Amino acid sequence: MRTSNFLIATQKETPADAEVISHQLMLRAGLIRKLAAGLYTWLPLGLRVLRKVETVVREEMDASGAQEVSMPVVQPAELWQESGRWEQYGPELLRIQDRHQRDFCLGPTHEEVITDLVRDEIKSYKQLPVNFYQIQTKVRDEIRPRFGIMRSREFLMKDAYSFHVDQPSLEQTYAVMHQTYTNIFTRLGLDFRPVIADTGSIGGSASHEFHVLADSGEDDIAFSDGSDYAANVEMAEALAPGSARPPAAAELAEIPTPGVKTIDELAAKLSIDPSHSVKTLVVHGEEEGQLVALVLRGDHQLNEIKVEKLPGIASPLQMAEEDAVRAACGAGFGSLGPVQLPIDVIVDRSAAVLADFVCGANKEGFHYTGVNWDRDCPLPRVEDLREVVAGDPSPDGKGTLQIKRGIEVGHIFQLGTKYSDAMKAQVLDERGKSVTMAMGCYGIGVSRVVAAAIEQNHDDRGITWPEAMAPFQLAIVPLNMQKSEAVASCAEELYQKLRNAGVDTLLDDRNERPGVKFADMELIGIPHRIVIGDRALAEGNIEYKGRRDSDSQLVPRDRIIDFLLEQLGG
Amino acid sequence: MRTSNFLIATQKETPADAEVISHQLMLRAGLIRKLAAGLYTWLPLGLRVLRKVETVVREEMDASGAQEVSMPVVQPAELWQESGRWEQYGPELLRIQDRHQRDFCLGPTHEEVITDLVRDEIKSYKQLPVNFYQIQTKVRDEIRPRFGIMRSREFLMKDAYSFHVDQPSLEQTYAVMHQTYTNIFTRLGLDFRPVIADTGSIGGSASHEFHVLADSGEDDIAFSDGSDYAANVEMAEALAPGSARPPAAAELAEIPTPGVKTIDELAAKLSIDPSHSVKTLVVHGEEEGQLVALVLRGDHQLNEIKVEKLPGIASPLQMAEEDAVRAACGAGFGSLGPVQLPIDVIVDRSAAVLADFVCGANKEGFHYTGVNWDRDCPLPRVEDLREVVAGDPSPDGKGTLQIKRGIEVGHIFQLGTKYSDAMKAQVLDERGKSVTMAMGCYGIGVSRVVAAAIEQNHDDRGITWPEAMAPFQLAIVPLNMQKSEAVASCAEELYQKLRNAGVDTLLDDRNERPGVKFADMELIGIPHRIVIGDRALAEGNIEYKGRRDSDSQLVPRDRIIDFLLEQLGG
Repeated sequence: MRTSNFLIATQKETPADAEVISHQLMLRAGLIRKLAAGLYTWLPLGLRVLRKVETVVREEMDASGAQEVSMPVVQPAELWQESGRWEQYGPELLRIQDRHQRDFCLGPTHEEVITDLVRDEIKSYKQLPVNFYQIQTKVRDEIRPRFGIMRSREFLMKDAYSFHVDQPSLEQTYAVMHQTYTNIFTRLGLDFRPVIADTGSIGGSASHEFHVLADSGEDDIAFSDGSDYAANVEMAEALAPGSARPPAAAELAEIPTPGVKTIDELAAKLSIDPSHSVKTLVVHGEEEGQLVALVLRGDHQLNEIKVEKLPGIASPLQMAEEDAVRAACGAGFGSLGPVQLPIDVIVDRSAAVLADFVCGANKEGFHYTGVNWDRDCPLPRVEDLREVVAGDPSPDGKGTLQIKRGIEVGHIFQLGTKYSDAMKAQVLDERGKSVTMAMGCYGIGVSRVVAAAIEQNHDDRGITWPEAMAPFQLAIVPLNMQKSEAVASCAEELYQKLRNAGVDTLLDDRNERPGVKFADMELIGIPHRIVIGDRALAEGNIEYKGRRDSDSQLVPRDRIIDFLLEQLGG
Repeated sequence: MRTSNFLIATQKETPADAEVISHQLMLRAGLIRKLAAGLYTWLPLGLRVLRKVETVVREEMDASGAQEVSMPVVQPAELWQESGRWEQYGPELLRIQDRHQRDFCLGPTHEEVITDLVRDEIKSYKQLPVNFYQIQTKVRDEIRPRFGIMRSREFLMKDAYSFHVDQPSLEQTYAVMHQTYTNIFTRLGLDFRPVIADTGSIGGSASHEFHVLADSGEDDIAFSDGSDYAANVEMAEALAPGSARPPAAAELAEIPTPGVKTIDELAAKLSIDPSHSVKTLVVHGEEEGQLVALVLRGDHQLNEIKVEKLPGIASPLQMAEEDAVRAACGAGFGSLGPVQLPIDVIVDRSAAVLADFVCGANKEGFHYTGVNWDRDCPLPRVEDLREVVAGDPSPDGKGTLQIKRGIEVGHIFQLGTKYSDAMKAQVLDERGKSVTMAMGCYGIGVSRVVAAAIEQNHDDRGITWPEAMAPFQLAIVPLNMQKSEAVASCAEELYQKLRNAGVDTLLDDRNERPGVKFADMELIGIPHRIVIGDRALAEGNIEYKGRRDSDSQLVPRDRIIDFLLEQLGG
């Protein structure tokens, strides 16, 4: 491709409303343009990247045995009423009416449509398992679209839905999809982790998210330095400490702590480390009006997802109001503690092995020091209540946890029979009996992958694409091409040769200053660049620079094609 | 691909609500399934066909120098208000509101969005011409969706928009697009015609439709047997007859014709050919209350498109009410004629060279015979008022017109400055002066091409795809594969060899009766088929049959690959 026939729409200024680097760089490099809030046009350069991602996704999905279909964007309300989601879904489901005032929605997802199709087309276990996918524009009416295409209202998604006669078959396809996703993100050249994810309100039996690691990610991921273990921090188990509780050494003492409300204030006042204190939070129990206290080490954070799943705790989790706490316990937030607390108490595993710790005295303005379980109060029920922190042992027993931020780009899910039950999607099994199909669903945010890749791969000059995602593999920058016949003919010759060798090449034949061309090619992030100039050419050389290299190098003109093919192959 | 891992969803019964053959066959062959009125899911088999069309369109658009972009489906109302189309467009524009009650529409076309983009990105004549295209899902809320994907509410379209500093540049790109469309439909193997089309209310300067010829088409196309001339019948000029008007031979006579209202009744009563009579129609003139009579030969049909464009005639064309006609002319429909008619008269070129003709006497129940222009009434203004008929001379002077039915699958259009004027899309020209860009637009109904191809290519057993559109090039049908080791291993060996040779092969490894497999492969329309059976195999043969062949032939097993590659290349 020649820049003279290809829209290069780079911008020098960082757009004011772009908060994250990927959004800034996508606008500055001319990959996208905003049409309206959360709606973007993909310019030719950006579309090339998007198509490369799409192609890798399609090839790997096909290789996995999945079959591509294409379902409508516009979906009839009846199916969503049948599954119950017409009522459940919030306003991000864009509901519309046609000219006959019939209700439709713009599909953010296609469980209903595919289940409707499969219950009509698949009648026997012999036709199972099947896995149908599509790569399609989805619409989700985000309340606050932001971060460019990272959270837009229209986006490109690969969604797949598998159907099975039983759970073991679902698990088998689920494993194939896990591997397929691993293949996809590996081929794209991204640093990613498949992480154990919350199954949320859908309540399926297993789920993994695929995260691209980047400091700007919205999610915290815990992963082991000694194994493949990775989980969303929400889901990572905090193991019970291996060491037993030390024996009590200090005496119980009540000390005045006027005005102290937080752990930090307490630690500062008593000159202790927060890990030698406990904090006591109060939530609603399962029974009407019941309150339950949760005791954690002062330096640990409550994990609401874990707590919500515990027996005896209200779900969704609801923190208690301070008035109710004061009425029940005799003190408000910041002065609570497990000693003689008149409500049910659950203690976190790590807090349960403390000795001689500090806690609130259930009396405003007072704390206890030297508290010990069993001696000063009975050790209550022990559970995993907290979020893991860096340095915790990995739940699989291998290595230590690290925590990094990630951007979710894929999600695989064992749905079970949620939709097939509601929509009566059944087949005859081997014995001729009707059984409800088990389902899996598997999504990749195709357009989101592009933004995530930039969050992970950029420097102060622009994007540093992984090879597989770059809009072009190689840029040819001729200097003074309009005046130098030698430069022009060398550029043309190499351009033709590289194209013939199958290299995706961009020839920058614009009549621009060298500095403009260099800056544009770096901003756009083309992985390899050669510069053709009169001076080097006179000595038989061509200048090469990899996008991530700090220096350029001279390569003899007669070796340049071989040299480039080596670079591209590596 | 193996049928055991590919959804073959053929049906024996012809669906009751499918009116046209392409709709029937797409359902029966399992290419699509209906989700709701005008909304279809593409099954794996159908999607393969759609993707093949899409690929040819993309390759040829790229080769033409057009640049691919992707614009949102959801478009903000503001842009449509700016162009004026928010008010002009009917209810087929699906208008929606987001969660903040802002107005949007689902784009049936993207002139506004691309013009908005280009006015921001393109500032100088040096960046022109540009031609941006996309292949995208479009939504049009048809009042009565029908004929399957032929007239659906959601469909796949290639739309392109070019921008130019002046009209000559637009004409140049228009010619390139004309050639590109010719290349596309030729590669797809379709019998098509580019035809001169009406520019309608947009009022651009030139337009061509591309029609796939098929008896079931909705449009009549006139084309020459002696040249490339082809036009929508609406647009084809009816030349003035070459022969002069014969001299008058008969006397003018008024004869009673009680109850005669139509030309057929008149011709029967007087035992004359309808071509010796004229009929007189009345329409509204440009001035308030003005009526204009149009006189055509009895066997000819009025062409409303032509008439509407004539000076002095109201546009849009409006037929006069009978009461007004009776008040002005003294007689009602069926009794009118040009002799002493007290309103303005325009006569068609063919009617103007008649002599001794029959017409109404402007008196209920009476006609004149032996009427002659100039003698019995002055020859009025002469214009081209009629639709051409088969046998008319071609307007380009070469050959004779034939008329066939066509299905419109493409449309190219010189828009001029309609949108760029309204939306102020300007660039600086060579002299640094702001000029409004000229625009062209170019559409192909990608999904519609699939249906049109079937309308043109089918027989009583199913679809007979052109090679380039077939979902698979070749079907391997092994007989009794589950029991015969020889058949199974031969089928596997050929399947692998053909795949390695790049042949898109479907191996029908289902455990079905031969008759079921044969019928399915013919219904699906795979162009080439080999059958592997024990008996022929014992004699070293394999049976081959082309989809359009009447008989099969035996080919020696050791020659079969070469034989097939020859067939596929031919």
